[in-house]
Amino acid sequence: MSVRQAVRPGGRSLRVQQAVHAAVGELIAEVGRDALTVPQVAQRAGVTSSTIYRRWGDLATLVSDVARRSLRTDCPIRLTGDFATDLAAWAEMYQDEMDSTPGRNMVRDVLRGWDGTTAACALLEAVRPVVETILTAAGPPVGLSADRVIDAVVAPVLMRLIFADAPLPAGLAREAALRVAAVARTNVPPS
Amino acid sequence: MSVRQAVRPGGRSLRVQQAVHAAVGELIAEVGRDALTVPQVAQRAGVTSSTIYRRWGDLATLVSDVARRSLRTDCPIRLTGDFATDLAAWAEMYQDEMDSTPGRNMVRDVLRGWDGTTAACALLEAVRPVVETILTAAGPPVGLSADRVIDAVVAPVLMRLIFADAPLPAGLAREAALRVAAVARTNVPPS
Repeated sequence: MSVRQAVRPGGRSLRVQQAVHAAVGELIAEVGRDALTVPQVAQRAGVTSSTIYRRWGDLATLVSDVARRSLRTDCPIRLTGDFATDLAAWAEMYQDEMDSTPGRNMVRDVLRGWDGTTAACALLEAVRPVVETILTAAGPPVGLSADRVIDAVVAPVLMRLIFADAPLPAGLAREAALRVAAVARTNVPPS
Repeated sequence: MSVRQAVRPGGRSLRVQQAVHAAVGELIAEVGRDALTVPQVAQRAGVTSSTIYRRWGDLATLVSDVARRSLRTDCPIRLTGDFATDLAAWAEMYQDEMDSTPGRNMVRDVLRGWDGTTAACALLEAVRPVVETILTAAGPPVGLSADRVIDAVVAPVLMRLIFADAPLPAGLAREAALRVAAVARTNVPPS
């Protein structure tokens, strides 16, 4: 029952992860998220089901892990240090990424397994470091928390992605970013 | 194939709807959303499957229709005509309603059937009339569209409901409402 096994660091661990991630991607394309099972994934990846349960806990967590890694929500842009410029550039990239077919598929796949109570996946935690980096690069505090920025920029993208017909209005996230940056500017004494 | 049947207005139509809605609610509680089928619903409601397909098109639309009707997203408050006061009062009620067990279950059930492209359900269309009523009651235009208000107030509630761990911060929607109202005030010349 409670056989404990040390996590093996290094090469094998990474190879298992890559094989399992690849298997999930292939099988979702072949049979769809709803028909996916842990034994199928294990067989395709050449590992045991217990390896998958030990590492990911359950299928929903595994699918969500795979989906998140396949998307770029980090910051590929060179930061200028101007909060409005940087946030708008990132917001535009974020909207493009999420409103793509892989982005929508990721959100859809994650939501199929949502329990209605705990977070469906770490989508917000994935953007927080980028938002904090942009806030920090702006130099003096701009009077906004990462949460406020995420509510203002990320929330409309995700809400409309899910609850409005596609595609999103062009510039939705960019304009939200510029608006929240303008509010921030009025909060900060000019340097 | 193309047998057309006139929709019968009045009593029978409403009774069918009530029976089907009740059947969906009972069966979701008993077998869960994932196991729900149209023939099951039809049998429980005492109608034929083709009645359900004719009226709702598919199971996802039916479930979403049932879910939306079970929630209050209209405006039970007496409007004062002060935009900030009215929007904050409604926002608080909206958050309470959505962050309840029935609210979360509704969103979860709707998202299970989401195709990733078209709107998962008419959740935003359901709030738009209320938001427009509040905007109109405020008298002179407050310089905000219903879309902007929905992005500012509804989006953070829905996004955090889905992608953050429960429960939502108290006052999330109310504070968002007060912020968007404060921005609006600076857009409008004092009367």
